[in-house]
Amino acid sequence: MAGQKVAVPKGMRDFSPLEVRKRKYLLNIIEAAFRRFGYEALETPAMENLSTLTGKYGDEGDKLLFRVLNSGDYLKGVELDKIGEMRPEVLAKQLCDRGMRYDLTVPFARYVANNWGELPHPFKRYQIQPVWRADRPQKGRYREFLQCDVDVVGTESLLCEVELIRIVEQVFGELGLKVTLLLNNRKILAGLAEVLGHPDKLVPMTVAIDKLAKTSAEAVREELRAAGFEEDKIGELLALLTTEADNAQTLGALDGMLAGNPQGEKGLEELRWILRYAEYSEVEMPVRVSPSLARGLSYYTGAIFEVVVDSEEFNVSVCGGGRFDNLTGIFGLAGVTGVGISFGADRIYDALELLKLFPGDLDSSLDFLILNLCEAAYPLCVRMATLAHAQDYSCMIYPEVTKMRKQLEYADKRRALFAIIVGDRELEAQEVVVRNMMDGNQRAVPLDRVAEEIFGITPGLE
Amino acid sequence: MAGQKVAVPKGMRDFSPLEVRKRKYLLNIIEAAFRRFGYEALETPAMENLSTLTGKYGDEGDKLLFRVLNSGDYLKGVELDKIGEMRPEVLAKQLCDRGMRYDLTVPFARYVANNWGELPHPFKRYQIQPVWRADRPQKGRYREFLQCDVDVVGTESLLCEVELIRIVEQVFGELGLKVTLLLNNRKILAGLAEVLGHPDKLVPMTVAIDKLAKTSAEAVREELRAAGFEEDKIGELLALLTTEADNAQTLGALDGMLAGNPQGEKGLEELRWILRYAEYSEVEMPVRVSPSLARGLSYYTGAIFEVVVDSEEFNVSVCGGGRFDNLTGIFGLAGVTGVGISFGADRIYDALELLKLFPGDLDSSLDFLILNLCEAAYPLCVRMATLAHAQDYSCMIYPEVTKMRKQLEYADKRRALFAIIVGDRELEAQEVVVRNMMDGNQRAVPLDRVAEEIFGITPGLE
Repeated sequence: MAGQKVAVPKGMRDFSPLEVRKRKYLLNIIEAAFRRFGYEALETPAMENLSTLTGKYGDEGDKLLFRVLNSGDYLKGVELDKIGEMRPEVLAKQLCDRGMRYDLTVPFARYVANNWGELPHPFKRYQIQPVWRADRPQKGRYREFLQCDVDVVGTESLLCEVELIRIVEQVFGELGLKVTLLLNNRKILAGLAEVLGHPDKLVPMTVAIDKLAKTSAEAVREELRAAGFEEDKIGELLALLTTEADNAQTLGALDGMLAGNPQGEKGLEELRWILRYAEYSEVEMPVRVSPSLARGLSYYTGAIFEVVVDSEEFNVSVCGGGRFDNLTGIFGLAGVTGVGISFGADRIYDALELLKLFPGDLDSSLDFLILNLCEAAYPLCVRMATLAHAQDYSCMIYPEVTKMRKQLEYADKRRALFAIIVGDRELEAQEVVVRNMMDGNQRAVPLDRVAEEIFGITPGLE
Repeated sequence: MAGQKVAVPKGMRDFSPLEVRKRKYLLNIIEAAFRRFGYEALETPAMENLSTLTGKYGDEGDKLLFRVLNSGDYLKGVELDKIGEMRPEVLAKQLCDRGMRYDLTVPFARYVANNWGELPHPFKRYQIQPVWRADRPQKGRYREFLQCDVDVVGTESLLCEVELIRIVEQVFGELGLKVTLLLNNRKILAGLAEVLGHPDKLVPMTVAIDKLAKTSAEAVREELRAAGFEEDKIGELLALLTTEADNAQTLGALDGMLAGNPQGEKGLEELRWILRYAEYSEVEMPVRVSPSLARGLSYYTGAIFEVVVDSEEFNVSVCGGGRFDNLTGIFGLAGVTGVGISFGADRIYDALELLKLFPGDLDSSLDFLILNLCEAAYPLCVRMATLAHAQDYSCMIYPEVTKMRKQLEYADKRRALFAIIVGDRELEAQEVVVRNMMDGNQRAVPLDRVAEEIFGITPGLE
């Protein structure tokens, strides 16, 4: 017996119960760390008005927005005889007033702009919700995926950066995933562009050096040359970026290059402050100064973070963020500065799966299965289930009176930890049999010892 | 300083941190009950292919589907010169391949049909996810709202019905919300239509009597008359439905009316079985036999449930469901029977709010605020935060060194439970001051007693 397979939309996924348990395990650790440091949860709707979304993610982003067809008479007001001449993106504006949330930053900015007067300052919020992008689906990239953002706005204090580093350390520490946090500062990048003689070429410079990890130094050299940087300056920059060095050496080299450049020196000062306070905060996770780190440059104004997994098999970025100066400017509220990071839950999931770091007990979806062998035992079965539930165990009575073998197969399929057997014989003997489904061992427990021996409830606590 | 207000789409909502805490409180109780009884979580994508959704909710439902415009060149293949003549719903099919999830039942049915062979039988799943309907927004009705469904498929055992009743009892018990569970059976309704001489008029009969709560008996009598029922039969039926009676009396009256009608007798037998086993299961919540209860009649085949709040101020349905015989038939897999109920999270939220049943401590969004009064205290502040975090308290250091008054105002705004004060004077005296933010009392604690006296960690456990 099988149904016809009915596809889900391309790039979207069902999550089976086992997958949901694994995702919840991961998200609970992330969320608990956010909450522990005083961040509060915000939730925004899946759809926003398109006027809120368009123009915020560049032309490429606008193309990737999922637009929702207006309900009712969506052709009302459309000049039907001109449709053939209209550009699709212009027509889309007439057909669709709403779009799906593309990230969590724009909804957050909208919320902050709408509620600034009522919010506590600093406002510390986290948001764990799905976002949708009409991207080309491929391995590890989905059209519906989860973002986990944590941001604080309304303060310039670098202690916020330090706090985010501690959150990163706690999350990955609890997950057992070894990571390195890479740290840079937009002002260092701007300073480098200045001392290299091309302050206006900050963007091509960072785009070029950002590729160092993926391509050769020679290719980056070529790209910098094409952008108009001078040969000797390129050499100096590449020497800085490609030399294996510890933080002290990298900071020393940056001191040398940026000496006398106010912006660069300010960036270095901030970076040193963060490192010193991370030390006061007893951060033990590796934090590495990485002057080539640039992610989201157009947005960040101070610290830039990225977290990469320390694994030969899965050396990818799982988290990133930075400080920004103007979150809500697009919504008419100027001067809201803040800093935040985003955890890539789907990638972290993939890393935990590949490196076999999910706890084994997530496989089990049931603590106790009480077998259903005779109607006479039902009241006893219910009393046992109630004891289990009071201890917050998951426990169910098999719904049908049927062969024991079939019921034990069900326990196996659910990977239940224990089966409890009570049939006519056990009722007669005033006992129940508990079977450890992992090793198959079983033993009889007298009825008056059930609470204590099966559910670990000491007498008097029932 | 204020941003321009940027609207969210009509019928959709932001949830502030306080609202999220309240929603989580509610959902955690619901989810824990589901899990405790051995149900597993399933999650499906926000969008489904429209072919999966259309035709499943009736014409009215199809109109309420949110359709997602195809990405890229959505006009490809559309005969532009014929658009003027096309009906909007026909054109929409060409513009949109996907739609937003309208409920959780169709995605569940699709998942079961797709995965039947691999699933444990019975398959017990719950699903707590938002759904979207382009309904006319009004008080208490939203275009994005949460459904909390719990269903078991693959067994006819009436113990499942009993288990669902226990779940309802536990959820509302833990929420402190007094409710009554109404119970009926489709077979009783069908039997009544038969003994009233019009087996083919089951639907108009139930539609009419379903209105008894909202209108007068006279109006229902008129509607039944118009549907072709005979005067004396109508009288008999209305006498049954409008007489205040306990379950024994109602069952007795039904016995009288349905005697000799096989379908009606079967329904009564099932109903009695469920009531008897609910008693074995020590269900104490009021369970009332309600022969006029019909909800979703076209779908249910056995038990029908509804849960109403016992409050003069808020006497609404917060939960409902029933047994069905053919969940997955629409997807080509016949014979999948099951039973389930759905909790209306938004309505339950409104009930708890109105009746002031949310716990008071949800107001607080922070356990400890450590004031930031001098840089020299920072290492000590971090150690205290670490102690608090290890006990899973939420605790943060105010990010800026500034006036104590401003920091205490922040603690107030966050409704922090405690502020911890450590400045130069306290450092000198080797103590910290703890202020209870609720009553304003404060006291000094020597540094070596901080773990024990502030965070309740007994010495040796640090």
